[in-house]
Amino acid sequence: MKASVLFSGGKDSSLSAILLEPFFEIELVTCTFGVLPVGEVAKKAAEKLGFAHRTIGLNRKVLEEAYEFLIKDGYPKNAINHIHHAAVEQLACEKDVSIVVDGVRRDDRVPVLTVGQSRSIEDRLGVKYICPLKGYGRSAVDLLVREYLIIEEGQSSEIIKADYEAELREIIRQRHGEYMIGTLFPFHMQSHVIGRKK
Amino acid sequence: MKASVLFSGGKDSSLSAILLEPFFEIELVTCTFGVLPVGEVAKKAAEKLGFAHRTIGLNRKVLEEAYEFLIKDGYPKNAINHIHHAAVEQLACEKDVSIVVDGVRRDDRVPVLTVGQSRSIEDRLGVKYICPLKGYGRSAVDLLVREYLIIEEGQSSEIIKADYEAELREIIRQRHGEYMIGTLFPFHMQSHVIGRKK
Repeated sequence: MKASVLFSGGKDSSLSAILLEPFFEIELVTCTFGVLPVGEVAKKAAEKLGFAHRTIGLNRKVLEEAYEFLIKDGYPKNAINHIHHAAVEQLACEKDVSIVVDGVRRDDRVPVLTVGQSRSIEDRLGVKYICPLKGYGRSAVDLLVREYLIIEEGQSSEIIKADYEAELREIIRQRHGEYMIGTLFPFHMQSHVIGRKK
Repeated sequence: MKASVLFSGGKDSSLSAILLEPFFEIELVTCTFGVLPVGEVAKKAAEKLGFAHRTIGLNRKVLEEAYEFLIKDGYPKNAINHIHHAAVEQLACEKDVSIVVDGVRRDDRVPVLTVGQSRSIEDRLGVKYICPLKGYGRSAVDLLVREYLIIEEGQSSEIIKADYEAELREIIRQRHGEYMIGTLFPFHMQSHVIGRKK
C-alpha cells in the first residue's frame, strides 16, 4: 500500500520515509506556492534517498493567510501551522492518497497538528495520518540520522530547504526586506539531506 | 543496536517490535510481580513472533502502591500508570539497556507517560525512550495488525494477557472477590497475539 510522505528535504521527513520503507510503498510529496523552486531542491534530495517524488501546488491564498498571521503575531508559529494544516488536508483529499505521513517528532512545537485535528482529518477524509517520529525524542532521532543519512547543517538563512518556512521567509524578504526576516523568524539550525548511508 | 520492547503479548507491543525490527536488534521484555504466570504467557507469544524474550520481576511494593491507588480512586487509570512508569524506569536502569520501547499509541489514555516523564527518563537514565505507535491512530494500527498479526480477541476477563492489568485484577479477585473486578475495571476488549503472518 502506498504512503505519501510530506517531504521538505530535511532529516525528519527523510527519516520518516526510511522508517516506513519496509512496510509501505513510499512516495515523497513536496508542497509549494511557487515562490521559490522548492520542488527542484526536494527532488534532488529525494533522488539521493532513492524514493519516488512529486510536487504539488498549494493555493496561494493559504500563503497570504499565513502572511497575515505572521505580521499580526510577530512570530511564525501560527503561520507555519496554518500552511501545514492546509498541506496535510490537500494531500489527504487526493483521490489516490490513503496514507498521509508527517515528519513531526515528539518534541516539535511547530508545525504540529493537535490530536483532534489528526482525528478530524482521518474521519472526514477517510485517510490514515501517520507520524512515524511522534514517539521519538531528539537523541533517538539523532541516532538514526547518524546511521542512515548524510546531512548538511546551517542557519535557516543559509540552507535551501523545501519547507514552508522558506517561501514564507521569501515573501517577507520581498515585501519588507532582509532585515524583517531576522525580526520575525527566530534563529535556528536547519538541516538538508545530501545523501543516504544505507 | 539492541532495543528492549516492553511486551504484554498484545497487538500494540507486538506491532511496535515489528516496526523496529528492520532497524534494531529486538528483545521483548515482560514485567511481572509473580502473581500470575504472565512471563510464560508472554514467552509463547514472543516465540510465535520470532523474537528473543525475557521476563523481569518488578518490586511487589509497586503493586501494593497501585492497589492503594485503585481502591482510593475506584478506577484503574492511576494504578496502571504507576506500574507502567515503574516498569519503564526499571528497564531503563538496566546496565545493558540503552533503548526502551513502549507500545503506546496516539489515542491511548492508559498507560501513558507524559512528554515530561519521557524526557526525564531519557535525561536521568541516559536511554532513548521510543514509542513507535505514538503517531498512529486506530485505523493505521488496524491496517498493520491485519497485515502482520494473527490475534484472538475477547473481554478482559477471558483473555490471558501479560499486561499489568492482569496481575492487578488478580489481586483484587483474591482480596475482594470476582464481583469487585467488574466494579473497578471498565469492560474493554483485549487482544492476544497467537501468530504472525509475515
